[in-house]
Amino acid sequence: MSDVRNPHVHHIADLSDDEIFAAHENGKLSIRTARPLETRRDLSISYTPGVARVCTAIAEDPSLASRFTGVGNTVAIISDGTAVLGLGDIGPRASLPVMEGKAQLFDRFAGLNAIPIVINETDTDRLVEVIKAIAPSFGAINLEDISAPRCFEVERRLIEELDMPVMHDDQHGTAVVILAALTNACRLLGRSMTDLRVVISGAGAAGVACQKILTDAGVTDIVMLDSRGVIHEDRDDLTIVKRKLAEATNPRNVSGTLMEAFRDADTFIGLSAGSIPEDALQVMAERPILFSLANPNPEINPDLAYQYGGVVATGRSDLPNQINNVLAFPGIFHGALAVGASEITPEMKVAASRAIAEVAEEHLDIEHIVPSPLDPAVAPAVSRAVAAAWTAAHP
Amino acid sequence: MSDVRNPHVHHIADLSDDEIFAAHENGKLSIRTARPLETRRDLSISYTPGVARVCTAIAEDPSLASRFTGVGNTVAIISDGTAVLGLGDIGPRASLPVMEGKAQLFDRFAGLNAIPIVINETDTDRLVEVIKAIAPSFGAINLEDISAPRCFEVERRLIEELDMPVMHDDQHGTAVVILAALTNACRLLGRSMTDLRVVISGAGAAGVACQKILTDAGVTDIVMLDSRGVIHEDRDDLTIVKRKLAEATNPRNVSGTLMEAFRDADTFIGLSAGSIPEDALQVMAERPILFSLANPNPEINPDLAYQYGGVVATGRSDLPNQINNVLAFPGIFHGALAVGASEITPEMKVAASRAIAEVAEEHLDIEHIVPSPLDPAVAPAVSRAVAAAWTAAHP
Repeated sequence: MSDVRNPHVHHIADLSDDEIFAAHENGKLSIRTARPLETRRDLSISYTPGVARVCTAIAEDPSLASRFTGVGNTVAIISDGTAVLGLGDIGPRASLPVMEGKAQLFDRFAGLNAIPIVINETDTDRLVEVIKAIAPSFGAINLEDISAPRCFEVERRLIEELDMPVMHDDQHGTAVVILAALTNACRLLGRSMTDLRVVISGAGAAGVACQKILTDAGVTDIVMLDSRGVIHEDRDDLTIVKRKLAEATNPRNVSGTLMEAFRDADTFIGLSAGSIPEDALQVMAERPILFSLANPNPEINPDLAYQYGGVVATGRSDLPNQINNVLAFPGIFHGALAVGASEITPEMKVAASRAIAEVAEEHLDIEHIVPSPLDPAVAPAVSRAVAAAWTAAHP
Repeated sequence: MSDVRNPHVHHIADLSDDEIFAAHENGKLSIRTARPLETRRDLSISYTPGVARVCTAIAEDPSLASRFTGVGNTVAIISDGTAVLGLGDIGPRASLPVMEGKAQLFDRFAGLNAIPIVINETDTDRLVEVIKAIAPSFGAINLEDISAPRCFEVERRLIEELDMPVMHDDQHGTAVVILAALTNACRLLGRSMTDLRVVISGAGAAGVACQKILTDAGVTDIVMLDSRGVIHEDRDDLTIVKRKLAEATNPRNVSGTLMEAFRDADTFIGLSAGSIPEDALQVMAERPILFSLANPNPEINPDLAYQYGGVVATGRSDLPNQINNVLAFPGIFHGALAVGASEITPEMKVAASRAIAEVAEEHLDIEHIVPSPLDPAVAPAVSRAVAAAWTAAHP
């Protein structure tokens, strides 16, 4: 840990521009025919006239599409380019490399076809209409890098209005992995999830979803922070989303600055771009759980985190316990598509968390509370758990 | 030719449902990562944090997208499912097998990535808006199976409003191959394109585009037929599109039924679902050029066509001289993308026709006026010709 003082340099110093740009030359995806087209007969089967029989069959029975087209294993990765990584609103074209990268991960970990779609439309209503219009092309929709608070309404409306799995990964993918990590941190420290005092910094896409899934998993004492301090019901500057957060959290009615939030808390989850001072760590309970996930610069300086924390996790690939949503989304979508689920329910997300936590359990220690993002056992385990959770509720 | 009397049965009788549906199981495309993702380092290059550098570079210089994303070699195949093969308006989902088949052909013949997008929207304005909104995801757009006359306005507006190649293949792909076939038929028969008297049956997508490209190539005497007979300026039942056709064609002011149109004509191009009686063939000039392209049942019974015709072509894969637009679209889009063309001009289409005709010239005879749809030399030749036509006009 000697060289974590300058985390940005350490983090990507060994990746050269040449190497990165070479790996992006001509894009990162390859779309090929899945069957040989060598003879006129092959052409007549895959294209005219043979294809007409398949079209006719689907027109008569739309449920056949999931079997005789790609929609049964195809996820659209859809973004408007308004909240891309830490770069902000860089527009649709410039966000395409992220969507291609995500599509690579869908292939690599779940063998799914994934199609990057970037949309030149930021008005919420029109964005929803465009996505609904193209939805018949896909079996499921992974929303990506859409700015808050628009992302909440976009996701909510698509879930309501489309009959297919829709998930905004920046919200739920991250939240699912955080719950898995927290489950194993509690296991290691001998704590119970229901007794935790949790501070979540950041009330954007990931923060809101993290609050939701922790509540679904039984956590009762959550205090949320935004850039103006503790979110509580007496504040008069709250958006609709934050007002709902105020109602759903903060049972001890904490108010004030982050110091008030941190006092006696035993868990910190950082999902913001802020910086947490050492003072705050000093007023926490002993050996707290510290997940500071901002990337590339964690909210808590890693040196301090290791000094104060009982269990430490970050978003960084060069430090132990990386909270990486690649542990969640490939298996979640794979499981949902496998059972033809029409949505991704809270129960399916909690089941995904449990499965991730269980894969890590085999080699569980303080530096391995989540599996490696490259562990090939994760996505199949998540898929099975997600499929089982859907099937249990829809026998 | 003994068994062409029941062309439908002959044509696909040897394709079983089992074989066709098996070839469509799970769809016909495979979307894979183009690079290995084996190590954490691979992930850091293709996804976070490395990808951020590529995003930032494209945000600063959008022209870099064609090099460092897939858009430089990605074509969207977009349909609203309103005019699918001969099946009509079967809707977006049921049209997906056709779009997947087309994507297979883009891969097979031009090595391009092609993405099937089917859109649940038939209002012309809204369809255009949806396509424009998702356009940043692609490098070019192949419109497919959109019903006439909407297809004309959809294509025209997208060409005007987008800065990328857009082509409705049902119009221009077919027209390009027809011009190539007609060029070689004239060569074999020692006729000049400018002296031909051409009857085109069908004023839909393909008919209109065929008239345009033949006019661009120097044909002056074209008479168009629709279901009500000859299209001429004195008719009071013409749509805007057909009124323009009436102005651009029919220099001898022919009116009346198809018999009037066929009298002394030396070329017939069938792009309709109609049926041409033997009487009509008897009033044509000697040994006419007969392209009856309706599928699976050509407008002219093949037995009659071979009896009367000097050169005969159909749309069928089991007869000689198949007019198949797979000869055109892979190379046209490949060439346009290769030179970064912002549109596909009339000159590029005529150049594509010439290239197709030239590939056939090597083995030119009455049964080989166009290359085999499987000839691997066609798409590269078309791509070079199309690219050269663009470059010549944009030095």
